[in-house]
Amino acid sequence: MSYAELENHFRTLGHLEHVASIMHWDEAVMMPVAAGPARAEAMASLQVVLHGYRTDPRLGDWLSRAEDDRGNLDPFQQANLREMRREVTRARGVPPSLVAREAEVCMRCEQAWRTLRAENNWDAFAPLLAEVLTIKREVAQALGQALDMSPYDALMDAFEPGVRAERVDTIFADLRGFLPGFIDEVAALQAGQPAPVEPPGPFAVEAQRRLGAELMSAVGFDMDHGRLDVSHHPFCGGVPTDVRITTRYDESDFSRALMGVLHETGHAKYEQSLPGNWLGQPVGRARGMSLHEGHSLLQEMQVSRGLPFLRFAAPRIAKAFPQAAAARADAFTPENLHRLYTRVARTWIRVDADEVTYPCHVMLRYEIERDLIAGRMQVTDIPEAWDAGMHKLLGIHTGTDYRNGCMQDIHWAGGAFGYFPTYTLGAMTAAQLFAAAYKALPTLLDDIAQGRFDGLNSFLALQVGAEGSRLTTDEMLSKVSGEPLNPEYFRRHLRARYVEQRG
Amino acid sequence: MSYAELENHFRTLGHLEHVASIMHWDEAVMMPVAAGPARAEAMASLQVVLHGYRTDPRLGDWLSRAEDDRGNLDPFQQANLREMRREVTRARGVPPSLVAREAEVCMRCEQAWRTLRAENNWDAFAPLLAEVLTIKREVAQALGQALDMSPYDALMDAFEPGVRAERVDTIFADLRGFLPGFIDEVAALQAGQPAPVEPPGPFAVEAQRRLGAELMSAVGFDMDHGRLDVSHHPFCGGVPTDVRITTRYDESDFSRALMGVLHETGHAKYEQSLPGNWLGQPVGRARGMSLHEGHSLLQEMQVSRGLPFLRFAAPRIAKAFPQAAAARADAFTPENLHRLYTRVARTWIRVDADEVTYPCHVMLRYEIERDLIAGRMQVTDIPEAWDAGMHKLLGIHTGTDYRNGCMQDIHWAGGAFGYFPTYTLGAMTAAQLFAAAYKALPTLLDDIAQGRFDGLNSFLALQVGAEGSRLTTDEMLSKVSGEPLNPEYFRRHLRARYVEQRG
Repeated sequence: MSYAELENHFRTLGHLEHVASIMHWDEAVMMPVAAGPARAEAMASLQVVLHGYRTDPRLGDWLSRAEDDRGNLDPFQQANLREMRREVTRARGVPPSLVAREAEVCMRCEQAWRTLRAENNWDAFAPLLAEVLTIKREVAQALGQALDMSPYDALMDAFEPGVRAERVDTIFADLRGFLPGFIDEVAALQAGQPAPVEPPGPFAVEAQRRLGAELMSAVGFDMDHGRLDVSHHPFCGGVPTDVRITTRYDESDFSRALMGVLHETGHAKYEQSLPGNWLGQPVGRARGMSLHEGHSLLQEMQVSRGLPFLRFAAPRIAKAFPQAAAARADAFTPENLHRLYTRVARTWIRVDADEVTYPCHVMLRYEIERDLIAGRMQVTDIPEAWDAGMHKLLGIHTGTDYRNGCMQDIHWAGGAFGYFPTYTLGAMTAAQLFAAAYKALPTLLDDIAQGRFDGLNSFLALQVGAEGSRLTTDEMLSKVSGEPLNPEYFRRHLRARYVEQRG
Repeated sequence: MSYAELENHFRTLGHLEHVASIMHWDEAVMMPVAAGPARAEAMASLQVVLHGYRTDPRLGDWLSRAEDDRGNLDPFQQANLREMRREVTRARGVPPSLVAREAEVCMRCEQAWRTLRAENNWDAFAPLLAEVLTIKREVAQALGQALDMSPYDALMDAFEPGVRAERVDTIFADLRGFLPGFIDEVAALQAGQPAPVEPPGPFAVEAQRRLGAELMSAVGFDMDHGRLDVSHHPFCGGVPTDVRITTRYDESDFSRALMGVLHETGHAKYEQSLPGNWLGQPVGRARGMSLHEGHSLLQEMQVSRGLPFLRFAAPRIAKAFPQAAAARADAFTPENLHRLYTRVARTWIRVDADEVTYPCHVMLRYEIERDLIAGRMQVTDIPEAWDAGMHKLLGIHTGTDYRNGCMQDIHWAGGAFGYFPTYTLGAMTAAQLFAAAYKALPTLLDDIAQGRFDGLNSFLALQVGAEGSRLTTDEMLSKVSGEPLNPEYFRRHLRARYVEQRG
């Protein structure tokens, strides 16, 4: 009966995580700024309560006995038990005093980032980030010891279980060999083509919001179990029964919010497809961030920036902005939108980057954060390293424009070191998943062009979502595509779209 | 050092209550309906955690030792200790299993109410309400035993510490003797006067929202520490550092939302004036619901429906609705708005009732809920009792129009039995507080007409808010006005405004 006790215990834990998740959304989307300090304290206490549940002294005994009795459990239960053990081991690795301080320091820095980024105020931001780094190093040290891995691996493992810096290094070395030349090739090719026509703004926020909501519903977001709102940094939060995605609007360019909404919708659909009868249990969760990014980038990059989808979306986009469409009908053709959405450019902002240069942004951050956690670099070294890295990878300088340089992302401010690599693992996962879906659904491209997403959604929901965390990421990919993560799919996708120009 | 341990413990409890409060707001304002069941489970678990903190076995020892050492505490600490004891005693009175069931049953019924009320679906609602009643009776029984009072008193005591049915009965008997004749008198008087001019709609929601926000700021709501949103049933929620008020808009009548917003702003200002260095501790909380309603009704009834305030507000209201104001300038004069806002009518809906007939709505609910809790009445008896009571008190029938009858309020659905009497105690408190403020601030009416609210706000914040829960309600009223609650102030106010027609 120990397994049953564990499920009960983790059900309560799941409920409190549900609360923490909605509260996190509220903090980013609804909370008035001045309420921040009191909220940070409240959330820190909640994290301590959660930590208490994860380190309940009864768990050790329950886990050992359930593990001895594993033969009587079905595959989902067995996987649930494995995930419970993993969570307890990770939690026990960090002392409660550190948990409270970590939550509070990170939330305060994240709150300050919202204002300081807008002000380009690195001097005020750096000491707050240094506090975050200090505590994350402590956490990483403690976790690394508990898990018998390097401190940085211990952080990365929270987002993508099983991944190690060694493997990331191999994948990134390969990319580093391939990408610079490829970017040159694509840039030259695109320079020889007519420039895409920019749709003429302004685009009212309300019209953008309606269009986003229309297309997110069309591609399968369940509006009865979620919301679309505005935040400083777009994200997908909430819980599977109540998925909250956010975006930010730019009245001069509707595409940023639109593609952002479709990206987050990919995340959301993964959450909404998780196994209903395992919700709240560890095995009911999304497998990890590379499959999560795999879903969002499949939705955004593989599907929504492709020509078939734009054949479906273009008339709807034009209808959302009737004045602009009347003024420049040629800006709203599927072909022009496709040229716009696949334009490759060496730019400053990661979230607005095209999919070809995007991995350069990730590699830069990966190298810096790995060195920060290892103590080989300090917070004060970041601006110079950032500028140098951007120049080496993309040939551009950021200088003291911190807002568009090392202060552009929320991740470090919020303590999410070890997260960035999953974006590029996710881009590779997306290419591999989409290739598998295309193999299983020969009419896929035509379906997308007709606005029929059921086949693709069912494929992903049944093959990936419904499994929750039963399998490891590599097992999951092997089941779906016949092999573990293979960067070749991503490379092939880039070549097909950007060189061979096949949509 | 036991007292210090207690403060630490209650600080964490306060943090978790902060979380519960924001989550409750989210549930009512943001959550998609279909997310309700999973949310109800999550919130039930949070309530169990809170209950665990309130019944921590170490508390008994800490409390006794701190009480023995009371002489070394300052007055706020002593009061804090008294409030801690009160909270622990109440919590210990209810077994944890009941707490979880209560939270879940009440939240589910409240969620269903939102849909079923709109559908006028009593048949589907009644069994859910019966479940709520069953569990509330159990809770009331258990609490009554623990506190040595009647079950109904034990529920009422949660909202207004110290109040008992005996006192409410006396106050209500007095009202029952006075009101019917008074309503007749006012109705006859108003029938002989020209009818007020109805401002011609429609009134766009966005214009209403802006006007509400403008006036709530003008009267002293701190927008850096709060929000205004929309919900089915208007309320004031959140925490003192982040007060969330809600309203609902009617495009044919801006006054309902406007007066609603000003009402909730009264609640909000009380919260925002609570003692900053005691936030999160029991003594830092609002004293009780009659002082809370005292603030909201002071803001709405004493101030905002009065002629001085309307002299200030009328031009702002006209500016918010320029078309309507151009079409019927005579509808937007202070005098006409005053006639509109002080019109007395025997109507169905409590929240839209004028201040003269309002106590009738409260007395009806009080009698029914007292009998429900005592087991002298069942849920299935409510519609008939409601219809009969409305007829007896106000001369109107509700029949099977449950939506505008016994299904109009959220309170019972959410398990808030024992709350209703505080509305009328609050109306009396408001009259008494306003009289005290007027005595202290001889220029008050003129200040209000000029839009100067600082004097009134400071008076309330310093005299009432800053005290938190240091004093009992009667002690507080005695300090501010020289005597405990005295219904004569309310009666005098009604007579002055509605018979003597002094604004």
